[in-house]
Amino acid sequence: MLDAAIRAKIEASFAAQPAMALLNARLSRVESGEVELTLPFDRKITQQHGFVHAGMLGAVMDSACGYAALSTMPLESGILTIEYKMNCLAPAKGEFFRLLGTVRKRGRTIVVAECEAWAHDGESVKLVATMSATEMSILGREDVKN
Amino acid sequence: MLDAAIRAKIEASFAAQPAMALLNARLSRVESGEVELTLPFDRKITQQHGFVHAGMLGAVMDSACGYAALSTMPLESGILTIEYKMNCLAPAKGEFFRLLGTVRKRGRTIVVAECEAWAHDGESVKLVATMSATEMSILGREDVKN
Amino acid sequence: MLDAAIRAKIEASFAAQPAMALLNARLSRVESGEVELTLPFDRKITQQHGFVHAGMLGAVMDSACGYAALSTMPLESGILTIEYKMNCLAPAKGEFFRLLGTVRKRGRTIVVAECEAWAHDGESVKLVATMSATEMSILGREDVKN
Amino acid sequence: MLDAAIRAKIEASFAAQPAMALLNARLSRVESGEVELTLPFDRKITQQHGFVHAGMLGAVMDSACGYAALSTMPLESGILTIEYKMNCLAPAKGEFFRLLGTVRKRGRTIVVAECEAWAHDGESVKLVATMSATEMSILGREDVKN
Repeated sequence: MLDAAIRAKIEASFAAQPAMALLNARLSRVESGEVELTLPFDRKITQQHGFVHAGMLGAVMDSACGYAALSTMPLESGILTIEYKMNCLAPAKGEFFRLLGTVRKRGRTIVVAECEAWAHDGESVKLVATMSATEMSILGREDVKN
Repeated sequence: MLDAAIRAKIEASFAAQPAMALLNARLSRVESGEVELTLPFDRKITQQHGFVHAGMLGAVMDSACGYAALSTMPLESGILTIEYKMNCLAPAKGEFFRLLGTVRKRGRTIVVAECEAWAHDGESVKLVATMSATEMSILGREDVKN
Repeated sequence: MLDAAIRAKIEASFAAQPAMALLNARLSRVESGEVELTLPFDRKITQQHGFVHAGMLGAVMDSACGYAALSTMPLESGILTIEYKMNCLAPAKGEFFRLLGTVRKRGRTIVVAECEAWAHDGESVKLVATMSATEMSILGREDVKN
Repeated sequence: MLDAAIRAKIEASFAAQPAMALLNARLSRVESGEVELTLPFDRKITQQHGFVHAGMLGAVMDSACGYAALSTMPLESGILTIEYKMNCLAPAKGEFFRLLGTVRKRGRTIVVAECEAWAHDGESVKLVATMSATEMSILGREDVKN
């Protein structure tokens, strides 16, 4: 069960991200250690072959990892991404994408999260990318509050 | 020395990426095995703390790696990103960012590239992120031509 | 179901690795896309704090990823590791370790595999590390036969 | 200039690693933010094709990253590896290997280091692998003192 104040913090933080709004990414589900984001296909985020740009998909996967991690941290924690690695398994083709972020290790300072990106195209559902990320809990820094 | 036809292919491919246009990223320099992209600060690509979203910066770094790799491949090669890893060294604050992509290993099928992201803020120049990426040369696929 | 000839190829390849013998790693299970290795604790593979050296654990996880990938490739394929990334979730303490390699993407040339390292210590079973790896199928090279 | 007490701490820590002794790895040079290790070829650390096992090379590169990072931390710091990623650029063939660890970001808690592995074979010197690693400074934990 996710604490209501932590849920509200995450929803407010996501809403305060111009980058996620630019991509029309949506926060679909938040649980303790699990976050689902949704990204609609849009020509404006594609690369030269007409697929969604791996880096743009990666930006949303990075957010899914970050919020999954933040959901396991104390209410007063801010978060910074230390690193992430993305494996591109298939071209990012589809009508929309579901990005499932999950915490693998809940540490006091360091949280490790993973993300799977699933492309939905009519009846077809396909895993197109995976990510692992290291996130850091930040306390007492005015410029990193959530 | 970079072949003129390969340079033209890379410029056309970059221009054909809606994602790079959305971010106002610019292709500033192309040599054999080296590409420099420039990304201006824009509030619309920031995250909840007002820094540029690490994932958005990563998307441009991914492109810098990809084009550095493509510059070493035969003219008829297309390219796909297999994976990349980004280390976030400091918050992405600045007026603009220079993304320097460099090839570390020129293979026939697999090319490994790296990218450094430098934030320019007045007189200050700071390394804010590094990336390593694996790129694959694709031949004879109509949907992956550049 | 794993083809008997592929299973035999993997068992012979593992047995031909002096590095795995040096670490006393054992091939406990091979299925199509899944491999389990076992590594006993031994003081000789520890680091300065008395835990198993992350890099030594990583070497066995790398093998688990490689053989999981090889189990999905044609009989005549050799394999080379392109890259791997390891997240260390907890110090590698325990009586023995189980390394579970699983294929996430079966490609014709590129196979992506993951590995989990579980430490067994009396009744306790703990996830201590995760890995993602990119493996490449090699055909027709005399020096890379398995 | 590296503080003499920190140099002594690193030399003692390296000498206290059974894993490095098992591989016959040697600490050849220590400066502030830079460490060089040397690994001789030995059949016992090879894989099925007769090359040095990528994971064994990775274990030594991980140590090079860790000690480069430790050289930038306060004397009382211990260190833990959070993650590393290795790109295998060429088969690890050679008479011996030089592993050059360098710090890219000196943080108070988090230090990011990189390593290059160079194979020496007669007159030939070849880059065979690169690594990036995240290291964490640990204070006040009795089980992680160096």
